[in-house]
Amino acid sequence: MPMKSMDDLFLHGLQDIYTAEKRILQSLPTMAQSVGTNELKQALEQHRDETQQHVRRLEEVFKMIGEKPKGVECKAIDGIIGEAQQEMKEIEDDAVCEAAIIASAQAVEHYEITRYGTLTAWAKQLGHTDAANLLHETLEEEKHTDELLTKLAKEKINRAAA
Amino acid sequence: MPMKSMDDLFLHGLQDIYTAEKRILQSLPTMAQSVGTNELKQALEQHRDETQQHVRRLEEVFKMIGEKPKGVECKAIDGIIGEAQQEMKEIEDDAVCEAAIIASAQAVEHYEITRYGTLTAWAKQLGHTDAANLLHETLEEEKHTDELLTKLAKEKINRAAA
Repeated sequence: MPMKSMDDLFLHGLQDIYTAEKRILQSLPTMAQSVGTNELKQALEQHRDETQQHVRRLEEVFKMIGEKPKGVECKAIDGIIGEAQQEMKEIEDDAVCEAAIIASAQAVEHYEITRYGTLTAWAKQLGHTDAANLLHETLEEEKHTDELLTKLAKEKINRAAA
Repeated sequence: MPMKSMDDLFLHGLQDIYTAEKRILQSLPTMAQSVGTNELKQALEQHRDETQQHVRRLEEVFKMIGEKPKGVECKAIDGIIGEAQQEMKEIEDDAVCEAAIIASAQAVEHYEITRYGTLTAWAKQLGHTDAANLLHETLEEEKHTDELLTKLAKEKINRAAA
């Protein structure tokens, strides 16, 4: 689909992260199932619940701009999650695998942080104030999850793996 | 290659970002060539020079842990850059294309930020203090570039595109 305006680019960005969120929603249970450390399992399960809320917020944003929720191919999230799944297969130690899982989850978070940051700025620029507020709410939650994972990695998971 | 220890995972992480940095180095000139706004062109060119320095630093880190610099497949950066290239083809307006380019460059930055953040923490945990310091230097430069791009997007590029 050719894009001719900033409105087209904004819509394309929403469709990209909509696909990404749904892909993340699919992959989080598998990640959570394969970890033994309770805090990490809980963090991943809590993030799955938040992700469901992020999908609903995106659907609201689509509605606000008069569009139907729809995804487009998201090569970036396919690559990030594909790499995570391959690593999990190649690691033969459970504690080391948890260190890799937390790193992969943070790579996913950073993809969301960059996209929601951009989409919030674009929504503001286009005068979609309500949409910008919703996107910003999700952005803050993604940043919070990333900080929580950093803390858990440094204080527990990396130490157990090393 | 099966990974059995945190040392194996750390080495694998270095090899992943080594591939990513080289791929970024290839793609930055194309991105810089296709923009007309001077500040954005300069920011991308400056980042290319920094990326060369980051590659050299990684080679030093490989040496510090007694390994030869080597890359592994990095599906994540392939996806992020592949998505950026496809978007550039689909956008028919120059100003809108610059807004997309700056967003793509920030997606690349965030991939680097998450990986260097993780590698710094792993290096510290493994007692590779000198390597951790070098990785942290790059991490800070990536964060700085991301902030610079955010400022440029908000103050100039998005406004021109909207």
